[in-house]
Amino acid sequence: MKKIHIVGLGLLGGSFALALKKIRPEIKFTGYDINPQNQIDALTLGIIDEAKPEADQDTDIIILATPADTLPLLLEDVLDKIGAETLVMDFGSTKANLCAKIAEHPKRAHYLAGHPIAGTEYSGPKAAKADLLDRKVFIVCEMEKTDLHLKSKAYEVLEALNMKLRFMDPEEHDSQLAFVSHLSHISSFMLGKTVLDKMEDDKNIFDMAGSGFASTVRLAKSSPAMWAPIIKENKKNILEALSMYIANLSKFRDKILADDYDGIFHEMEKINKIRDILDLE
Amino acid sequence: MKKIHIVGLGLLGGSFALALKKIRPEIKFTGYDINPQNQIDALTLGIIDEAKPEADQDTDIIILATPADTLPLLLEDVLDKIGAETLVMDFGSTKANLCAKIAEHPKRAHYLAGHPIAGTEYSGPKAAKADLLDRKVFIVCEMEKTDLHLKSKAYEVLEALNMKLRFMDPEEHDSQLAFVSHLSHISSFMLGKTVLDKMEDDKNIFDMAGSGFASTVRLAKSSPAMWAPIIKENKKNILEALSMYIANLSKFRDKILADDYDGIFHEMEKINKIRDILDLE
Repeated sequence: MKKIHIVGLGLLGGSFALALKKIRPEIKFTGYDINPQNQIDALTLGIIDEAKPEADQDTDIIILATPADTLPLLLEDVLDKIGAETLVMDFGSTKANLCAKIAEHPKRAHYLAGHPIAGTEYSGPKAAKADLLDRKVFIVCEMEKTDLHLKSKAYEVLEALNMKLRFMDPEEHDSQLAFVSHLSHISSFMLGKTVLDKMEDDKNIFDMAGSGFASTVRLAKSSPAMWAPIIKENKKNILEALSMYIANLSKFRDKILADDYDGIFHEMEKINKIRDILDLE
Repeated sequence: MKKIHIVGLGLLGGSFALALKKIRPEIKFTGYDINPQNQIDALTLGIIDEAKPEADQDTDIIILATPADTLPLLLEDVLDKIGAETLVMDFGSTKANLCAKIAEHPKRAHYLAGHPIAGTEYSGPKAAKADLLDRKVFIVCEMEKTDLHLKSKAYEVLEALNMKLRFMDPEEHDSQLAFVSHLSHISSFMLGKTVLDKMEDDKNIFDMAGSGFASTVRLAKSSPAMWAPIIKENKKNILEALSMYIANLSKFRDKILADDYDGIFHEMEKINKIRDILDLE
């Protein structure tokens, strides 16, 4: 492994490079970001050694870490020009649309569809952290469609980063992520909006907010440039999850309207079993 | 200050005693919990020095730290028997109903309506921590209705614990807390329910959950014995907050249905200003 090129020098692309550079100082990192300031910051922070718009032909791995809706066209363009021994891997939060669009590309076997389950509410190269990916899950979709030899380059670096590989199909991935990630972001944004709307009357309302509020609203700090595209790419599954959530909230409201506090108690008690599931992790 | 009696030896009552004992070892703590095991645990953990159902007549402060819906009757009973120099203070999460019910009590001046803005998703004496209340906000309602001399006993201990006093009327308190605390808990419980419902089809879904999900669903681990009563006591304000939240989620869903991703981007961008507000704290 000699050379890695990263397109999109933000939180994930940057954290990947910082982590790998610590344990594999011999690898040369090149990279590109559409935002010139991000490119300058990535050079300053040592995320990349050289900024260039396209990967050299002898690059081992190209990482695409740009917003979800930019990936189909970008991936097609990268595959068109890809070196004979180069693997391209993406870090996108949605997989079904991307895998479908690239299915018939003559260089399909050069591509590995990936998704690291890691992130924070911050973005950009300055938010990158060398330990962000450590021991996190990395989902691989359609592994059987990637060339065995090229794929091994990806597994080599992902294992070096202590990432836990999981394999699933793109539709299953997008459906599950809608529930355990995308819905959380929408619920948090709308919670933030509801309180901000209320704040227009009560200026001091945030003074009363405790750690519980901070925890549930944290994701409302997330980047719209990342999240609006995810919603676009995973529309169908997100609508399903969001509709189930709204229906559950409405049924809960009906219980309050009916003064059914026993029902509320028992419902909360059942949901408490999420303790056991989350504490296992 | 010689003696403090605590009714309800859970997270808040226990944390209050543990913190104060560290800096005022001369104070004797007595206490009671309707759950015998909590009482035993509170003795073992050094939260109280002696368990007894009622406070001695020479007690300086009685703390009521029981579920919100038990407070009106309990407070009335305690005031009926209160010592001449004793202050009673509650830690309840709702204030309007309680203050209204006790308004005409002949010993009203012995009572200070309080609410420490602190907690975790855990409960019971074993969850108590000496630093839980440190530098947290303590809301006092209807301060003018409490006897000046008795009130000073409360301020003495709250200041010793580094708590930040805020004064507001009970209706304002309940309305604001519905938005910045009670709604967060309901949104988190219903998020947990939505994913648990989905899990019945997809057993491995939690494997895919990242730190964002854990953060938004953390409050769904909270105690139903605490939260069902809060919803009961603050029904009107919670219904207002919950209805606004459901309406915001529904409007957001409409934007997705209409493929209005620019609208979604700009809405998220506006809500991002919550960064500045939360990071100030």
